[in-house]
Amino acid sequence: MIDLFTWGTLNSRKISIMLEETGLAYRVHLVDIGAGEQHEPDFLAISPNNKVPAIVDHELDGGPRKIFESGAILIYLAEKTGRLLPNAGVGRTDVLQWLMWQMSGLGPMFGQYYHFARMAKDEIPYAIDRFDQEMQRLLTVMNTRLGEAPYLGGNYSIADIAAFDWVRNTRKLRDDELDWSRFPHIDRWLEDVGARPAVQRGMRVPSDREPYQRKRGEATSAGD
Amino acid sequence: MIDLFTWGTLNSRKISIMLEETGLAYRVHLVDIGAGEQHEPDFLAISPNNKVPAIVDHELDGGPRKIFESGAILIYLAEKTGRLLPNAGVGRTDVLQWLMWQMSGLGPMFGQYYHFARMAKDEIPYAIDRFDQEMQRLLTVMNTRLGEAPYLGGNYSIADIAAFDWVRNTRKLRDDELDWSRFPHIDRWLEDVGARPAVQRGMRVPSDREPYQRKRGEATSAGD
Repeated sequence: MIDLFTWGTLNSRKISIMLEETGLAYRVHLVDIGAGEQHEPDFLAISPNNKVPAIVDHELDGGPRKIFESGAILIYLAEKTGRLLPNAGVGRTDVLQWLMWQMSGLGPMFGQYYHFARMAKDEIPYAIDRFDQEMQRLLTVMNTRLGEAPYLGGNYSIADIAAFDWVRNTRKLRDDELDWSRFPHIDRWLEDVGARPAVQRGMRVPSDREPYQRKRGEATSAGD
Repeated sequence: MIDLFTWGTLNSRKISIMLEETGLAYRVHLVDIGAGEQHEPDFLAISPNNKVPAIVDHELDGGPRKIFESGAILIYLAEKTGRLLPNAGVGRTDVLQWLMWQMSGLGPMFGQYYHFARMAKDEIPYAIDRFDQEMQRLLTVMNTRLGEAPYLGGNYSIADIAAFDWVRNTRKLRDDELDWSRFPHIDRWLEDVGARPAVQRGMRVPSDREPYQRKRGEATSAGD
């Protein structure tokens, strides 16, 4: 049994989708980040960076395994099950580089865009424009890649799971703000990934709550 | 032979350090990001996200392997050589989670701090304060971890290589601005990692140029 510590965040959904894809048994534990539960000692003992998602895997001989950081959890679950990450060759490299691209670029930069565009107490055009430009650059890189290959890593993989809800959320929230006809391959990919039953089940954990709907002025931390 | 595409950036240094640690033969190719060389077609064919570092490994039966994203290159070189990333167990999980923490948190957030504090054409106190607070939070998490274990992943690993130059650079640039007595374990770790001969050699590739010395107003992209 795997304990999943989660909340309705874009990074958390990566792990509920992966658990559904792999069919591993798991229990959901909600960590209410609005109420500050990510700072409680019991949770910090699992996730010292005070972020969801995190997991504890109890199905191991050496005792329970605690893991934080969504990208590390995805690799762990892929290697545990032999699913969605080739164990060698160019397929493995391709998946890991696009997973890292999501972790280091798409996630953090989209996150800052939403902070400055929707949540920051001050409206700062310079910062909104900076992260808007970077978001559009990243979407262009992604669209080009998805014009060459059906999925980010070639075949469907943990790289797609990492990117899916971030991009789906932006496709919806910025429907009228961006010219999506520039990104036809992303729309095709969103449809293909979103049609997977495991993805649909994973997206309903813990709830259908949409991230980034908060109003300007509500507090968040920079790394959300 | 491995081709390393690099420049004097904090992410590039991760790979020259790792190549020195593993003793793999490599050739250095400079990609002058000040001159825009990262946007040239030959480089984009290797690194479609237009960032250094990237590598091409020619020592493979299946033909050359192109890899971008520093975190993916570190995992690739570790798995190729069997060095600095355990191949199973809690040691592997611990290294990968702290590597992801550097890739998704420490790198992007420190990068945004330096953009707003030193390089942005406008001085925006809200943004400087936001990323300064996040930097100090991340340093606190890191110091706590290094009080429990000698290195981020337990033993010395690719997680330390990923964090080293980012933290070393901040220790130097913000010597007078932050109270470093709050982070004694980081100072100890900087000394231990920095004393490694391979780290010292890797830090001299491609040059001794220090990142983040540019003046306010010089252009950069959000993902630097």
